[in-house]
Amino acid sequence: MDHDFPALFPLGIVGAGQIARMMHQAAIKFGITPHLLAEHADDSAALAAPNAVFGHPDSLAAFADSCSVVTFEHERLDIGLIERLEASGAVIRPGSKTLRAAFDKAYQRRVLLGRGFPIPAFAEFQSPDDLLDFASVFGWPLVIKSSRAGVEGQRSVWIVGNRSEAMRVISEQSDRPLLLESFQHIVKELVVLVARRPGGNSRCYPVIEQINVDGVASEFRTPATIGHAVATDARSLALRVADELDATGLVAIELFLTNGGLIVNEIAARPHNAGHLTIEGAATSQFENHVRAVLDLPLGPTWLRAPAVVTKNVIGGRDLVDPARGLADALAVEGTQVHLYGKRHQVGSKLGHVTALADDIELAEEMASRSVSALLGRRPW
Amino acid sequence: MDHDFPALFPLGIVGAGQIARMMHQAAIKFGITPHLLAEHADDSAALAAPNAVFGHPDSLAAFADSCSVVTFEHERLDIGLIERLEASGAVIRPGSKTLRAAFDKAYQRRVLLGRGFPIPAFAEFQSPDDLLDFASVFGWPLVIKSSRAGVEGQRSVWIVGNRSEAMRVISEQSDRPLLLESFQHIVKELVVLVARRPGGNSRCYPVIEQINVDGVASEFRTPATIGHAVATDARSLALRVADELDATGLVAIELFLTNGGLIVNEIAARPHNAGHLTIEGAATSQFENHVRAVLDLPLGPTWLRAPAVVTKNVIGGRDLVDPARGLADALAVEGTQVHLYGKRHQVGSKLGHVTALADDIELAEEMASRSVSALLGRRPW
Repeated sequence: MDHDFPALFPLGIVGAGQIARMMHQAAIKFGITPHLLAEHADDSAALAAPNAVFGHPDSLAAFADSCSVVTFEHERLDIGLIERLEASGAVIRPGSKTLRAAFDKAYQRRVLLGRGFPIPAFAEFQSPDDLLDFASVFGWPLVIKSSRAGVEGQRSVWIVGNRSEAMRVISEQSDRPLLLESFQHIVKELVVLVARRPGGNSRCYPVIEQINVDGVASEFRTPATIGHAVATDARSLALRVADELDATGLVAIELFLTNGGLIVNEIAARPHNAGHLTIEGAATSQFENHVRAVLDLPLGPTWLRAPAVVTKNVIGGRDLVDPARGLADALAVEGTQVHLYGKRHQVGSKLGHVTALADDIELAEEMASRSVSALLGRRPW
Repeated sequence: MDHDFPALFPLGIVGAGQIARMMHQAAIKFGITPHLLAEHADDSAALAAPNAVFGHPDSLAAFADSCSVVTFEHERLDIGLIERLEASGAVIRPGSKTLRAAFDKAYQRRVLLGRGFPIPAFAEFQSPDDLLDFASVFGWPLVIKSSRAGVEGQRSVWIVGNRSEAMRVISEQSDRPLLLESFQHIVKELVVLVARRPGGNSRCYPVIEQINVDGVASEFRTPATIGHAVATDARSLALRVADELDATGLVAIELFLTNGGLIVNEIAARPHNAGHLTIEGAATSQFENHVRAVLDLPLGPTWLRAPAVVTKNVIGGRDLVDPARGLADALAVEGTQVHLYGKRHQVGSKLGHVTALADDIELAEEMASRSVSALLGRRPW
């Protein structure tokens, strides 16, 4: 047979949101049409891909059977099942060790603590007494977080200032396993993306700074406005975490820069919202490097294509404006890169993003802001 | 309804080769999933797109009914049908006037001649006497070409040195309408891409130089190694041709630079092989600007992202090597952008392309060459 190409790389992607959509696009570039395990016909990636099958993520075993390499756009998985699939010979990338650390934050904290990585003080919440004990040592406020990887738009972190606030969160979240963490005075939130091949060969992207508005990640910019020494430390820390977890594919290490130094906040074992700026802003996008890494192909360079790159999220507001209606106005902002995900509008969900490349962060930020305002129908921009 | 997005831009693409595949990708970025009129299930674009319908291009009328804007990846069309669809209110972009000029080269030559554009001397071939008359005026060699837009891999231009060579071509091509043209001493072959909106607003890309090997377009590079005055003339000429044909979408004007100046060689009313270098090499790709133009959205900037950009075609050779087998080696050439189209291997067909950005043309050319050699299994690279 002269055309065994698709058979060379039968790649499966579990999940069909916008991360899977952009991963799919990266594979198409290489002539590969991935299989997609979607949940709904109108999932963002399913709208853009021919080979989507629809099933609960539990249909993973059958799906894995049809692919030679399986990867993921999220970590909300049955880790026991992943381990059994691995034991039976399936190639799962990232593997169960990495997925567990991204999915189960208590496990992740124990692993990182055991290896001496800088993390906040933490305790697994079992009863209100645990919380009071924790507060008596570390004081108020303290942080309560879900110890499981979250769903987009679902709140999973609460900063509580006193006992009654804490008790309210605990009773409202009684069905979720919770983690307690000491409160950090955050100077900056940083994200470091690492692409890593099965053998350990890896590449790190320039440090990205995350800007939150009302507690929601709103903007990402690179280079981060931090000193050279901090940037070097952040990259080195991220690479060591990726090695420790034996990550394969793209792994995003979220860091807090505090007055006491860098602390590992979260780990995502997949392409990350922060990395959307790499699509136009870096020599190789995070999605392409994820595909390369999970297929054990050489990684591409990660340098920036412009002195400053900013991405702003397009997040569904309460006024239910379809961002497509603002597309013409958004594209009229010269040089902005507008991405829409084709998703059903829901309050708080990510409907798209805009990236701007410029000579400085302020200009890139202004361009991206004007374009996002146009998409959200907020004049004047 | 809070989610009428896909209905806002129901875009249809006729044809499903690699040009349609890359057009489709550009639309996906905007949250739009185009409908595709494909011929075969393994057409390059059909492998990457969920909304492909399969039919002969003659099923165009029914297809146009399901879309609010119809565009094309080729010009091998029934122009009479296009005109009837336009008359019945269908939005066809580019329209019949432009498509006719790209499809019917005799018509195109008459239009350009009538408007004073620089073109070779030409005559429509009806009988061998026409050819001898033409040769008696313009001498040997002369050029015989098919006067219809061609199919990929099908030869459509012959340079004949004498009467017997000419007669052989004429008898072999007796089923095709032919055009005679005076032979040009070509200094360089240039391609100018113009994106143009329905109202006439347009943007021109930097001039691209085409390098042929054995008569086949093998490489495209920009900036072209021509003087500033020639580049300015080439762009101005291309913009005037686009205006004259009332082009909508991306139109590629192929020019010959001769000792006597610039001459219009061919016109393609669609994204062009030369423009693949705009995917990574320009601020906005030709495919995105085509989608923007046919949807009457503001055009994106066309400046180059690097001092030098080179694209080389990956063309199927007689040895039937699947380029996917060379993917790892090709990606190991640092910084090259490898595109494979997922197509069945056929001798002479375009299976992919590689783009390299660098500080000078020589370095970009070397990078792209090494990567293409790896894809074609030709060591050492």
